[in-house]
Amino acid sequence: MTDKRPLLAITMGDPAGVGPEVIAKALDHPEVWQVCQPLVVGDAYWMEQATRIVGSGRPVRAVQAPAEMEGSQSLAVLDLGNVDADHLVQGQVSPEAGQAARDYIQHAVQLALERKAVAVVTAPINKESLHAAGVPYAGHTEMLAALCGTQDVAMMLVSGKLRVSHVSTHVSLHQAVERVSQERISRVVSLTHDALKRMGLETPRIAVAGLNPHAGEGGLFGIEEVEIIRPAVEAARAQNTDVTGPYPPDSVFLRASQGEFDAVIAMYHDQGHIPIKLLGFYEGVNVTLGLPIIRTSVDHGTAFDIVGTGRADERSLVAALRLAAQMGRD
Amino acid sequence: MTDKRPLLAITMGDPAGVGPEVIAKALDHPEVWQVCQPLVVGDAYWMEQATRIVGSGRPVRAVQAPAEMEGSQSLAVLDLGNVDADHLVQGQVSPEAGQAARDYIQHAVQLALERKAVAVVTAPINKESLHAAGVPYAGHTEMLAALCGTQDVAMMLVSGKLRVSHVSTHVSLHQAVERVSQERISRVVSLTHDALKRMGLETPRIAVAGLNPHAGEGGLFGIEEVEIIRPAVEAARAQNTDVTGPYPPDSVFLRASQGEFDAVIAMYHDQGHIPIKLLGFYEGVNVTLGLPIIRTSVDHGTAFDIVGTGRADERSLVAALRLAAQMGRD
Repeated sequence: MTDKRPLLAITMGDPAGVGPEVIAKALDHPEVWQVCQPLVVGDAYWMEQATRIVGSGRPVRAVQAPAEMEGSQSLAVLDLGNVDADHLVQGQVSPEAGQAARDYIQHAVQLALERKAVAVVTAPINKESLHAAGVPYAGHTEMLAALCGTQDVAMMLVSGKLRVSHVSTHVSLHQAVERVSQERISRVVSLTHDALKRMGLETPRIAVAGLNPHAGEGGLFGIEEVEIIRPAVEAARAQNTDVTGPYPPDSVFLRASQGEFDAVIAMYHDQGHIPIKLLGFYEGVNVTLGLPIIRTSVDHGTAFDIVGTGRADERSLVAALRLAAQMGRD
Repeated sequence: MTDKRPLLAITMGDPAGVGPEVIAKALDHPEVWQVCQPLVVGDAYWMEQATRIVGSGRPVRAVQAPAEMEGSQSLAVLDLGNVDADHLVQGQVSPEAGQAARDYIQHAVQLALERKAVAVVTAPINKESLHAAGVPYAGHTEMLAALCGTQDVAMMLVSGKLRVSHVSTHVSLHQAVERVSQERISRVVSLTHDALKRMGLETPRIAVAGLNPHAGEGGLFGIEEVEIIRPAVEAARAQNTDVTGPYPPDSVFLRASQGEFDAVIAMYHDQGHIPIKLLGFYEGVNVTLGLPIIRTSVDHGTAFDIVGTGRADERSLVAALRLAAQMGRD
C-alpha cells in the first residue's frame, strides 16, 4: 500500500544556524508524522549532531533518493554531504555554510518541480553567509523565484487565524507607496484566493487594507484608496471573489484575527508584519505565493547566539510543516 | 482640609453619542473616585438620562463652578444647558450636538488653563456633527491645539504597557514619509520623555522605530534611518535621554509590550495604531503631548449604533481618567 502522506522536502538551512536543531525538535512531534513524510535535504552528520543536542531518540538515516524512505520512521536525510565537519564553526558566518544552504534549496526545489516532493519547507538561512558564498540573492524568496523561473510572487504570513499577503516587501516605504497599483493588488488577491482554497477554505473571505490612515477618510488623507485600491477590489469582486475593502489599516487585522476575514491584503511590509509578529511570534509561517511549487517556511532567522543549546523554538517549523502538508493534499 | 485629589474636567462629548453613558459607567467605578474629583463639563439633563440608561444609582448635581463640588460624591456636572431636549435625537448627526460638544471642550480647556482643573479628559465627539455646526477642525487634537494657541503637538496612545508617540498622524502615507525630519523626531522624543516622567517613570527608556522594513537594513531598503532617524536618536542621547534605535518596526512594539522600553516613537499613524489597537482594543488612551494643559481621551468614537443601550464599554474612559490623575499629581 502506498503511503498517502505528502512527502515534504525540508531544507536544513544554514548548517551553522539553528535549522538542524529546530528540525530535530519538530520531528519529535508525533502529529507531524501523521500529516506528512518528512525528508530533510541536508547533511546527515549535522542532523545527527542536532538530534543529540536536542535529546531526540529518533535515528538519522542517510538516503540518496526519496524512494528509499518509504514508510520509514527514521529521520531521513537526503545527504548532500557538502559540509566539512572540520571546518564549520557553529554560530558563525562562513562561505561554506552559505553555499551548503544554497545547495539544499536547489535540490529541494528540484524534487518539488519533478513532483518527487509535494512541497518545500525551509529552515532559516543566513544572509551574510550567502553573501560570503557569492550567492546573489537577498533571501529565500528571491532565490526560489529565480530557481522556478518566475518573478511574480507574493509573501503571505500565517499565524493562527491571521493570514496576511503583501503587495510589496523588501523595498523602502517610499517605494512601497509607489508600488501600490491596481494590477499588483489584483494579482496578490488572486494568488491569495488560490492559496486559501488550498488551505481548505472553500469560499475565502479576503479583506484589502487601505494604504493611508483611516483608509484615506474619503480622500482627505491620500487618494490611493479612491483611485487604485477600490477599483482593484471592485474588479476582483466582478470575478466572484469575496473581497472587500479598502478597510482602515488599524482595525482590519484585529477583525481578521477575530474571524471576520480569512486573509488580509497588506499594502506594505510592516503593515502586515507588525500584526503578525504581535499576535503570533512563535508560530508564524511564511508562504511564498506564485511559485509553481508549494513552499512554506519558518519566519525566524538562524539565531547564531543560541546554536548548540537546543533552546531554539520549533513551533514555527511545526506550523510550516502542517501548513505545507495541508496545502499539498490532493 | 482641602481635597488632595486632582480635579479632572471631563467633557461630555457629543450628547447624541455614547459619551454620557461611558461617563456614567466610568464614574460607577469606586477607584476612579479614589484618584480624582471628576467634574463633567456638559449637560445635567443628558447625564441624568445616561445614569438611568446604565443603571447607575449616583445622583447628578448641576453646578456652576468647580468650587461648588468640593468633597461631594454626587456626579457633578458643570451644566452648560446647551442642548434642547426636544430637538436632539440620540445616535444622529446634528449641528446642535456638534456645537454643544465644541462648547464643552472650550469650557474644559478654559478651566485647565486657569488651573481650576488639573487636566481635561475628553469623551468622544462626532466629526460630522462638528462639520454640521461649522466647527472648522478635523478633531479634538486640532481644536485643543488652537484653543491653547499652539501647533506643536504630538499624539501618544497608551494601552497597558505599550505607549506609542507619533511623528505624524492624519496625513497620507506619502506625506508621512516626507514629514520624517530630525527636528520633528527630536521634538516628539522630548515631549514623550516629559510625559513619561509625568507618568511616574524616573528614567524613561524610549525606543525609536525605523521608517522602512528592517529599519532600512543598512540603507538597502531606504536611507531615512541613516540620514535622519539615527542622527536624531544620537542628538537626543547627547542630552542624556535614554533613547535608542532606529529598531525594525515589526519587532519593536512587541519588545516594548514585553517591558523592554517605556515608549516607542512611531514614524507614522498606522505604525503606532496597528499594535496599540491589536494589544488593547478596550483600554486605549489618547494623550495629547505639547499642550500647556494635561489632556487624555478615550480612543473610541461616538458609536451611534449602540447609543441608549448602555452597552458602550467604559474601560477606555476609566483608563483615561486614571492616567490624567496620575499625570496631574503634584
